[in-house]
Amino acid sequence: MTGGAPISLNSSQRGELELLRRIARECLPPAEPALTVPFGDDMAQVPGSSDRLLWTVDLLMDGVHFDSGRHSWRQIGRKALAVNLSDCAAMAASPVGALVGLALSQSLSMEDALEIMRGIRDCGAAYGCPVTGGDTNSWDRPTVVCCAVAARVPPGQRPVTRSGARPGDRIHITGPVGGSILGRHLTFEPRIATALQLARELAPHAMIDVSDGLALDLWRVLEASGVGAEIDEADLERAIHPDARVLSARTGRPPREHALADGEDFELIVVLPEEAPLQRCRELGLLPLGRITAQPGLLLRRADGVCEPLAPRGWEHFR
Amino acid sequence: MTGGAPISLNSSQRGELELLRRIARECLPPAEPALTVPFGDDMAQVPGSSDRLLWTVDLLMDGVHFDSGRHSWRQIGRKALAVNLSDCAAMAASPVGALVGLALSQSLSMEDALEIMRGIRDCGAAYGCPVTGGDTNSWDRPTVVCCAVAARVPPGQRPVTRSGARPGDRIHITGPVGGSILGRHLTFEPRIATALQLARELAPHAMIDVSDGLALDLWRVLEASGVGAEIDEADLERAIHPDARVLSARTGRPPREHALADGEDFELIVVLPEEAPLQRCRELGLLPLGRITAQPGLLLRRADGVCEPLAPRGWEHFR
Repeated sequence: MTGGAPISLNSSQRGELELLRRIARECLPPAEPALTVPFGDDMAQVPGSSDRLLWTVDLLMDGVHFDSGRHSWRQIGRKALAVNLSDCAAMAASPVGALVGLALSQSLSMEDALEIMRGIRDCGAAYGCPVTGGDTNSWDRPTVVCCAVAARVPPGQRPVTRSGARPGDRIHITGPVGGSILGRHLTFEPRIATALQLARELAPHAMIDVSDGLALDLWRVLEASGVGAEIDEADLERAIHPDARVLSARTGRPPREHALADGEDFELIVVLPEEAPLQRCRELGLLPLGRITAQPGLLLRRADGVCEPLAPRGWEHFR
Repeated sequence: MTGGAPISLNSSQRGELELLRRIARECLPPAEPALTVPFGDDMAQVPGSSDRLLWTVDLLMDGVHFDSGRHSWRQIGRKALAVNLSDCAAMAASPVGALVGLALSQSLSMEDALEIMRGIRDCGAAYGCPVTGGDTNSWDRPTVVCCAVAARVPPGQRPVTRSGARPGDRIHITGPVGGSILGRHLTFEPRIATALQLARELAPHAMIDVSDGLALDLWRVLEASGVGAEIDEADLERAIHPDARVLSARTGRPPREHALADGEDFELIVVLPEEAPLQRCRELGLLPLGRITAQPGLLLRRADGVCEPLAPRGWEHFR
């Protein structure tokens, strides 16, 4: 999420991961044997749907995910839908429609509120995801914009989960990462077309979108799959976005750190079977990152061949 | 919604209805000819679903829809799901699952957050609506709890919309209303079982749940159907909840006013064809209220036979 300082995953007992674990243990029903999407993935399954329907919800809060003092309401509306569309991409599912819930600050004009909806509408139109309905409210607090999106897995295909990575698989990413706070966290393009193409052609074993940071989101794939990974240092250098270097000049932190921990890039981490043709990966714009290992843990393989542990850092709520 | 002072529908150009009209005009796609649920109803249709799937989303905000200083987090969680289940009831649809989005105040403990989820879980278990997934966030502002619910229209049936009321139809309500702020806004039972039974047996022409006030929600049915209504004064007196009389003693406003304008009762207004057997209506717990007229407008027919206009008052955001 925007603007998060890097943290270590193990630093906080009150962390979001712990809350999610406890919610899963206490509050979610036992997984159905027929369930093809495990709890905690980018989208959930609509129970009993014969349409292979998935759905997801995301809340964007003023001062956390956007800053209404700097961003236009139309940009904010766009982002509120786009983050959900990125979840659709991560599952290789095609969006079908959205619901919008608004908690509008009383300082907003009707025109501001309509600008949020226009941002959502235009983004939805670009990705085949019309607004179907919603809920509007106002209060004397900062604005919250919530979108829920439903998406369909194309016939003959399965949703791509986080949990299918296997030792020997190759790790790719759909584009360079880091420094998204300079603007791309508002303007990113959800990788739906690439994801659908990948699912048709290369049968990815696992995917996730980089919302909370490359290292943290990759770590989530590893944990869900019960595997580890080695990131190649030279590959990682090539996957650093120019924005990460610009930001590095301001923050004094290395560009690599921004690439690993910034979040809100909304590129996809794509885990492919070893035999997936490299040439086709390049044509689809995928950058190589490394490979999945049987040994758990996340390692950086340096140019000299030595491996060092890589902390799964990124944005986590409830620090 | 809880605690709204009565207002006149026509008092505000900045009103919620105006915003919704402008959103519908500008930001929603043209209605599909095959769409059986018009925009603005209690639930929306999931586009292209062969499962007759509907969905809805509601945001509950601390200080607006609940008061974390007085209500337990478990009650708050329960309410966040139950208001959506009431929308399912209003469409005569059977809930299948929920998504939960949380914007948690940083003052909450993990136990508080889990209590919200347990309230949602227990309510979902009672109505066949398991939590399938969601989104958790924290900020230094009051808590927002958002639930999205999907529901299926039973085979061989149609969703009951707001727009099917016809002159001559009878108006009923599933229980007495008014004074819900004394506690029932937290403890109400969504009328799903009654609604499904009604849809099977009596083919209602229109339904809506009383979320913003009897008069305002009935007015919404009238507007969507292009008709008017006469409420019978004696019927209305019998539909006043005892809580409305208790509250009246505190507020000095007549109990009838609380019954007409308080909101958050979550009883269903049910519009039935004239020939629906009265005896069966009584067995199902329905109270009579009046009848639909061809002449637009909402009238109160007094015991002396004289009709007087009834203002469609209730809770409206953006006053």
